Amino acid sequence: MTKGAIVSRAEDFPRWYQEVIAGAEMADNGPARGTMVIRPWGYGIWELMQAELDRRIKEAGAENAYFPLFIPESFLKLEAEHVEGFAPELAVVTHGGGKELEEPLVVRPTSETVINSFFSKWVQSHRDLPLLVNQWANVVRWELRPRLFLRTTEFLWQEGHTAHATEEDARAYALRILDEVYRTTMVDILGVPVLTGHKTARERFAGANRTWTCEGMMGDGKALQMGTSHELGQNFARPFDIAFSNASGGRDYVWQTSWGVSTRLVGALVMGHGDDFGLRLPPALAPAQVVVLIVKDAPEVRSAADALVAELRQAGHRVRLDDRTDTSFGRRSVDWELKGVPVRVEVGPRDLAEGNVTVVTRHRREKENVALGSVGAAVATVLATAGAELLAEATAARDARTVEAGSLAEAVEAGSEGFARVRLGALGPDGEDRLAEHAISVRCLQRPDGSLAQVGDAEDDLVAVVGRSY
Amino acid sequence: MTKGAIVSRAEDFPRWYQEVIAGAEMADNGPARGTMVIRPWGYGIWELMQAELDRRIKEAGAENAYFPLFIPESFLKLEAEHVEGFAPELAVVTHGGGKELEEPLVVRPTSETVINSFFSKWVQSHRDLPLLVNQWANVVRWELRPRLFLRTTEFLWQEGHTAHATEEDARAYALRILDEVYRTTMVDILGVPVLTGHKTARERFAGANRTWTCEGMMGDGKALQMGTSHELGQNFARPFDIAFSNASGGRDYVWQTSWGVSTRLVGALVMGHGDDFGLRLPPALAPAQVVVLIVKDAPEVRSAADALVAELRQAGHRVRLDDRTDTSFGRRSVDWELKGVPVRVEVGPRDLAEGNVTVVTRHRREKENVALGSVGAAVATVLATAGAELLAEATAARDARTVEAGSLAEAVEAGSEGFARVRLGALGPDGEDRLAEHAISVRCLQRPDGSLAQVGDAEDDLVAVVGRSY
Repeated sequence: MTKGAIVSRAEDFPRWYQEVIAGAEMADNGPARGTMVIRPWGYGIWELMQAELDRRIKEAGAENAYFPLFIPESFLKLEAEHVEGFAPELAVVTHGGGKELEEPLVVRPTSETVINSFFSKWVQSHRDLPLLVNQWANVVRWELRPRLFLRTTEFLWQEGHTAHATEEDARAYALRILDEVYRTTMVDILGVPVLTGHKTARERFAGANRTWTCEGMMGDGKALQMGTSHELGQNFARPFDIAFSNASGGRDYVWQTSWGVSTRLVGALVMGHGDDFGLRLPPALAPAQVVVLIVKDAPEVRSAADALVAELRQAGHRVRLDDRTDTSFGRRSVDWELKGVPVRVEVGPRDLAEGNVTVVTRHRREKENVALGSVGAAVATVLATAGAELLAEATAARDARTVEAGSLAEAVEAGSEGFARVRLGALGPDGEDRLAEHAISVRCLQRPDGSLAQVGDAEDDLVAVVGRSY
Repeated sequence: MTKGAIVSRAEDFPRWYQEVIAGAEMADNGPARGTMVIRPWGYGIWELMQAELDRRIKEAGAENAYFPLFIPESFLKLEAEHVEGFAPELAVVTHGGGKELEEPLVVRPTSETVINSFFSKWVQSHRDLPLLVNQWANVVRWELRPRLFLRTTEFLWQEGHTAHATEEDARAYALRILDEVYRTTMVDILGVPVLTGHKTARERFAGANRTWTCEGMMGDGKALQMGTSHELGQNFARPFDIAFSNASGGRDYVWQTSWGVSTRLVGALVMGHGDDFGLRLPPALAPAQVVVLIVKDAPEVRSAADALVAELRQAGHRVRLDDRTDTSFGRRSVDWELKGVPVRVEVGPRDLAEGNVTVVTRHRREKENVALGSVGAAVATVLATAGAELLAEATAARDARTVEAGSLAEAVEAGSEGFARVRLGALGPDGEDRLAEHAISVRCLQRPDGSLAQVGDAEDDLVAVVGRSY
């Protein structure tokens, strides 16, 4: 079997990941420790994800805003668990404008504190609720073992922050975001099947009462936490004094949520669908959905290629022309394959003499000789079906690596290779510690049928999905 | 004349500006010195500007990417003028992950240095040129006299960075951005007439050979620099070693450009079009283009309002329903006027009994009684014409405050109230110093007919547009 220019997944998955990121020109390491340069191909994927997420966030009623990068150190200390959780990861500005600052400024690791200091001004009456705000921003969490897209000192994300009149409203909104924004985008657009559930106390967000999560399985069987939605209760409302006059004239603290997904999703796409030849992009997230390659230059080849590009663009697809014939055709094919472009249309003099071109479907690696007049239909078919096929393939792979376990020992065995599903009660009181000895953690808790836990469910009867993770 | 809740422009323009920003809920001061919270109304305007700019940037062939926030201090020192220009404005991270850093990290004030360190890896051959990259990002420049949107310690912007094989190519690209991206967006979309030209050596970007600029006149006669496009020559290419093998096998340094516009444009919109009742938004940049107000609640009023909202949305407009009848109608009208929504449709029981509603055109402050069936057409007309009318009004106001001056004394007199146009040679060798004594600067240099200077033009024969500025 012909291989691309990269190591196989089976041989060395972490190296394969790095080589795909580098080979597809998605990202580079930045000069400061753990930082990342997102190159146009990686950023183009992120922009398409952003658009999908942003539309859904707006449909859920949240409005975009922007809060400062710098947070006075004292703000962070107002919520005890929160500062404890983030303190080891902070970057601190001590000098500004040529002088030492009186109070150091923290570069935001997340924005609960600064946003809630404004919520306390903006919320006065029950008429101001719910207050639904989102921001697209960079955040910084010092990272000692960086990995491009997965763990970087600086990353890009969206963070939503909301305030509600009741705990029920806040919970319903946290779950709405989890389902209608995150799960839907991950499954329908990224084509990555995610499990949803909530985190154990050990794994939840610093300052939250409950953290809901979307967990995907990557190509090596490990879990990736792809997005979280938190119920913050009144944990920030009290120290930040976010209160409102209720309808009966009294004064109540608000109930809050926060939720975020990041450029980590680009890493999920690579590890969720990549094969030994590189990235495989769902058409919805491909910066170029089709590349038309001129195999060898000749006037009739160029005019046929130009006409195809025009026709495919007219049909609404994102199309690139590759006419760099001073680079070998083989090299260029491998590069586009590495980049994961869903369809390649190869136009060469020999095929063209018979009125044909070659259409290559990336995710199935199938080549087909197609008559010029049928290229539009052939491309449209691939673009309409590739996303669902990638999702089906990823779902089957995940299910094949998911095992029902009856004991901690069984959970450890299965969780080392994929996911184990085990009743939380069966893990015992020190279950998470014992899993941790094998580098396994509880990714989420669900009802046995895979649905979300409801108020009143006994924790011990819930199923823990356990596995190794990024 | 009935006034809004704000001071008049004539009485106190700076206070008027602050009151519009606050009253329209566009932004707040952040907790750290000079930082800003951009609230949903202000951010919504910025998002619409971003989309217009981003589309044009992509049409000009540049691709979006993202480079790190943190730049090692040593990088900044590689270009002497550059570091000298930015040193007093830097914010510096000295601690990360709980430890003091070996090398302090600068929070980017602009990204020439970090981006060019990557260009030196990515550019090898003439085939890699031109390299056209843009990023949307936050930057930090310590600000002692902050002003929301105009001068803030942190601001949002786009910065483009390009590398070309020849000086001519670089110049042509800098001018293409200036004209096809910046001037076009400012004039056609913001409705702010801008003068274009280049900066004197005193005013140009630290590290540039030539800085091209777009200068608008605000409502108080002062200039606002709204966007700049720089020819960097080989000033960064040499220290960062960005070189390529040319077609004849030799090795050349690249020629570069950089260019940026920022959230300052939101300030330009406020000061360019605002009146004594608040903001006036061109429809293209209005987060809500139409607000349908329920004057007083009643079943027939609500159903008429709902039907109008549906009809106007169907027509493709951005529409909000204001049914907050527990707040007085007068208060709500004033608020929407402050926010600058182009059209208000007021639905009340009395008018409705006669089959009418009131349509209010914000920028002309005209009210009209309109039959229900004609609302769609009336709204469409306002939305189609308001942008051009605002541009015409701003152009007339600017032209009325622009004077041809024959001497430095005349330039000082006219430049204190608006723009003076004076032959650069007439200002004499210490002209800029003498203007500065009156807080006046050269905003740009042009040919006498207002067109851009060409290679070979004698500087002294160019016209200096001088005035006070933000």
